[in-house]
Amino acid sequence: MINNLILPEPTLRRLPWYLAYVEILKAQDVEYISSTQISRALNVDASQIAKDLSFLALKGKTRIGYEVDALAKALADFLGFHTPHKAYVFGTGSLGMALMQDSGLDNYGLNIIAGFDIDKNKIGTKVGDVPIYHIDSLEEVMEANPATIGILTVPADCAQITADIAIGEGIKAIWNFTPYRVKVAEGIVMSNTSIYAHLALIYNRLNAES
Amino acid sequence: MINNLILPEPTLRRLPWYLAYVEILKAQDVEYISSTQISRALNVDASQIAKDLSFLALKGKTRIGYEVDALAKALADFLGFHTPHKAYVFGTGSLGMALMQDSGLDNYGLNIIAGFDIDKNKIGTKVGDVPIYHIDSLEEVMEANPATIGILTVPADCAQITADIAIGEGIKAIWNFTPYRVKVAEGIVMSNTSIYAHLALIYNRLNAES
Repeated sequence: MINNLILPEPTLRRLPWYLAYVEILKAQDVEYISSTQISRALNVDASQIAKDLSFLALKGKTRIGYEVDALAKALADFLGFHTPHKAYVFGTGSLGMALMQDSGLDNYGLNIIAGFDIDKNKIGTKVGDVPIYHIDSLEEVMEANPATIGILTVPADCAQITADIAIGEGIKAIWNFTPYRVKVAEGIVMSNTSIYAHLALIYNRLNAES
Repeated sequence: MINNLILPEPTLRRLPWYLAYVEILKAQDVEYISSTQISRALNVDASQIAKDLSFLALKGKTRIGYEVDALAKALADFLGFHTPHKAYVFGTGSLGMALMQDSGLDNYGLNIIAGFDIDKNKIGTKVGDVPIYHIDSLEEVMEANPATIGILTVPADCAQITADIAIGEGIKAIWNFTPYRVKVAEGIVMSNTSIYAHLALIYNRLNAES
């Protein structure tokens, strides 16, 4: 069911909002929802919602709207949340460990199957069911149990070298949680979750308000 | 040293990259850095870097560039990372707990002083030094030890109500980690760290590459 269209980033940002909202309605046994209702609940323009949802192979009914169950399934399918994607965590500090333990990510199709570190006290241990290996074992682990996504939670000064090693061994996408601006070759997928930039934004806006 | 200009979001996204890079140079005892060198290292246009850095009260020297120590300090000051900002975590699941334990955030001026939950087994316990209270105690805790930032790591179906309660008790900024699109009144600062949107982006781009 996954598309292979390159979707615009703003659409990819909004679709998970619709999904989260529709999942709540589903839990409340709501049967139908219109884009106007979604619009009111989420403060997104109704025509924008209709446009975003037009990417899905799903038609709403005039005046009734979308069937909630079908819409939730179509959204999650379309976003790839129902397809397991294997990932490694690089850097098993507090954030890396939290991601390894977060069963929520599993529900969104992210299957973390190994962690890598250089701390001797961590190598050979597990976080939940997920084993931690030395980064030097990456080649072997990749052969035995390959992953496509590398989650980068190392210190900023190791971010580039770790990404380079991971990509060298066949990782196709880097999910970067470090504040470092990692460079990757063309064809490698790069996504930055810029925790510190979000903090800077909050501080700046708070200060401007006060 | 914090400005009270409202800075554009893209600038606020880039400034922490420069800081992370300059911190690495500082650890390597590099003394001077030019915007051309930052540009090469981070793949950001040199004129853009010069423009971003012009917000700081710091002048580079012709041909030598910026003093690394001074630039690191000026950036961290300017971004508010040297000013303590008090925060509560709402929802002490795996992500909430990880944020409470992450000493890294302290270095960026985020001082998490309490967690809130509704799980009886958690109330009264601590994560590191940080106590967990029942959400019903928010008013009291706010009076005794107030915070301005509310970090939202509750399940999506509690996101809006929790934000409403927090803001009702005086929280001024919501840092939303849930996939739910939370609505807040004007004057309240809102920042979304959209983990699931980033996953959707990675899956979409991976799929388009393959």
